[in-house]
Amino acid sequence: MKNRTLVKQLPEHLGQEVILAGWLSNLRDMKNFGFAILRDRTGLAQVVLEAVHLEQLKGLQLETVIKVTGLVKEKKSKDPNAKEVEVQCLTLEILSPVTEPVPVEIAKPDIDVNLDTLLDNRVVTLRHPKQRAIFRVQAALVHGYRAYMERQGFTEIFFPVLAGASSEGGSEFFKVDYYGREATLTQSAQLYKQITMGVYEGVYGLSYSFRAEKFATSRHLTEFNQFEFEMGFVEDMEELMEIEEAVIREMLATVERDCAPELQLLNVTLPPLGTHFPRITLKEALQAYKDEAGIDEIHEPDLSPAAERWLSTVWAPKHHQCGFVFVTDWSPAKRPFYAKVDPNNPENTLTFDVIGFGSEITSGGMRINRYDEQVARLKEKGMNPDDFTDYLMMHKYGIPPEGGFAIGLQRLTQNILGLSNVKEATIFPRDVQRLRP
Amino acid sequence: MKNRTLVKQLPEHLGQEVILAGWLSNLRDMKNFGFAILRDRTGLAQVVLEAVHLEQLKGLQLETVIKVTGLVKEKKSKDPNAKEVEVQCLTLEILSPVTEPVPVEIAKPDIDVNLDTLLDNRVVTLRHPKQRAIFRVQAALVHGYRAYMERQGFTEIFFPVLAGASSEGGSEFFKVDYYGREATLTQSAQLYKQITMGVYEGVYGLSYSFRAEKFATSRHLTEFNQFEFEMGFVEDMEELMEIEEAVIREMLATVERDCAPELQLLNVTLPPLGTHFPRITLKEALQAYKDEAGIDEIHEPDLSPAAERWLSTVWAPKHHQCGFVFVTDWSPAKRPFYAKVDPNNPENTLTFDVIGFGSEITSGGMRINRYDEQVARLKEKGMNPDDFTDYLMMHKYGIPPEGGFAIGLQRLTQNILGLSNVKEATIFPRDVQRLRP
Repeated sequence: MKNRTLVKQLPEHLGQEVILAGWLSNLRDMKNFGFAILRDRTGLAQVVLEAVHLEQLKGLQLETVIKVTGLVKEKKSKDPNAKEVEVQCLTLEILSPVTEPVPVEIAKPDIDVNLDTLLDNRVVTLRHPKQRAIFRVQAALVHGYRAYMERQGFTEIFFPVLAGASSEGGSEFFKVDYYGREATLTQSAQLYKQITMGVYEGVYGLSYSFRAEKFATSRHLTEFNQFEFEMGFVEDMEELMEIEEAVIREMLATVERDCAPELQLLNVTLPPLGTHFPRITLKEALQAYKDEAGIDEIHEPDLSPAAERWLSTVWAPKHHQCGFVFVTDWSPAKRPFYAKVDPNNPENTLTFDVIGFGSEITSGGMRINRYDEQVARLKEKGMNPDDFTDYLMMHKYGIPPEGGFAIGLQRLTQNILGLSNVKEATIFPRDVQRLRP
Repeated sequence: MKNRTLVKQLPEHLGQEVILAGWLSNLRDMKNFGFAILRDRTGLAQVVLEAVHLEQLKGLQLETVIKVTGLVKEKKSKDPNAKEVEVQCLTLEILSPVTEPVPVEIAKPDIDVNLDTLLDNRVVTLRHPKQRAIFRVQAALVHGYRAYMERQGFTEIFFPVLAGASSEGGSEFFKVDYYGREATLTQSAQLYKQITMGVYEGVYGLSYSFRAEKFATSRHLTEFNQFEFEMGFVEDMEELMEIEEAVIREMLATVERDCAPELQLLNVTLPPLGTHFPRITLKEALQAYKDEAGIDEIHEPDLSPAAERWLSTVWAPKHHQCGFVFVTDWSPAKRPFYAKVDPNNPENTLTFDVIGFGSEITSGGMRINRYDEQVARLKEKGMNPDDFTDYLMMHKYGIPPEGGFAIGLQRLTQNILGLSNVKEATIFPRDVQRLRP
């Protein structure tokens, strides 16, 4: 729209005539005059209306789209130091009339409805400043991740979603009717990122993953995105952890740089990053949990949610001024079939988790790159190598020592913003019940 | 890998000892010595082997992954001006042995197999320099598009793939078994980009689209990606065309900047861009086709493939020194239900196509933004408004005058590189027959 002034630019136009356009976010009718709050993508502005404008708005509801020509004036305020502006309306044009009241009230500091109502009415609720802020932060995370990867000269891959029927079985695959045959939706980009790593050496991309989870919990989605990374000619696991630490730092720095107003609005403070994310083994983590927190889970094969919270919010900040910790030395039983087993210890894998913001945010590690070793490993796991023809084809024709990691986009957003349900961190979430909008 | 030297860095290390790592791309055994061609992500290097190294490679096949320590020397050449280097092998290590011959020969200037064989063996064929170059160009297109959009302050959206059952019907939807109910895969991001445009005003993103096309042609995929764009508070269609022109210019400039070696390898010259992409109506285009090319298709409602080719490769270069042309003024019958009909002419829509590289590469235009108008339009098109509840919800609660466009990622890549089949421009293509790898 030519000559349009955005709300945030208004102070620069004090004393001038401007054109504003946006949504009627609120309206107070004082009979002979009134106050409209106009919302555009940059903020809210008070517009002083005359009776003739109120007449034009008669019968129209909030969220009506309007265009205002008006004069930018200083706003009278109780606080003499507050330099605020408002717009004295000269002409009002209705760009898009709304005649039914909005189903959810969004003109207040917080939306006061349950999650289902919030999501059923996404068209309207996403316009609330706090809702829209969530997905600005999400986009900034993606930008930081890509900027880092691109600077390293890695190649971005656009992973497929449709795949052949899973001969592995497993009830967590969604099945697609594909011209009378069965197709599935990809559960992970593992196959594709390993194949392309064998071409470009370093690859990344944002994948779609689908899991037909049986339950709708606060941590589960049936469709989600993952930051993928895979790299060949890796010397050791430390090289992967260095890259993951660097990319997490850049993602958070990008959020801080590009989303300061959003973080403030959402009342979020990012955790300390220290100079170096600590690396500890699972055993050391459980020992510290026992020694320092007094909780004995020393014989567990995994970290409990409480232990993850303690490690990243108490232990790592206290000892390392850092809200993140790499936990290494996981048993093969707890890791996928492609995880590289430590050649010096068959009870250990060369894999890691990152715990941050109170819980696990990512897994990664070295992969098996030799054909014979991968075939043997599948058999040990009770899987049939004949079900992995495409997967094993890449080992057969040579892939270098390699590894990688994946970070869930929505789960990371949820953790960073401290949202209680991952669906709040998903713009159009899908779960057992939900497929719309 | 620490201390690794990449092939393209070799000339800087003349006379020094280096570590190379990569794939055994070719091997000539001269009995007492031999020549290996090592391939890494940056190129090919000749490695001179001694008998002991040939012994190590005995029984191993091409694509074996190797690590070489060696001395960088000047290579003897027939051309005394050619400054080439080779590596005299000191030690050779097998990182990943390949014991079966590769199914497709890739150590030559072109892969000489049919498309199905090429794709069946993606793990190997993608390693051919010309194949890998295609997807470097594709990634550069995406980077150029994003860089432009981000600079405008537009918001990136991650569109969903799973959607509710289509009450519109249509046999081209893929159906998903969703906990015993029916779900579909999104055919387009239209709904989502319009909803989010109503929040962020300007939105973009790379979407996934799925079409259960009945036929496998050289132009069709069942799964593909689209560059999406949607913007609110648009004054007129020209504003959208200016953005599309600017983004196409930036995409091509990014390819030229980042992919010069790939373009050279693929023998591709980008078309001229002129100072301004011409805009002509469909009628004017058909008239020019008759007057200048002597082919009368004046009463057609659309451009034939031959007319598209002529317009973008003959007419636009000749008159505008440009390989692109906007064609406007399409009949409502040829455009989707959300296309804005010209308020001054019910036989016309405010939409456009871009023709470039010989064929249509994108469609766009203004959308209907008023509820009553959209409901009426659906009925005129013989569609039932009750089947569009979510879609109409956004009109009901206020969206500004707006428009947008979409560009197919794989089809644009195909056109730019002059590939005969869109599947060659798709890293893991899916069609009626193909779901793997």
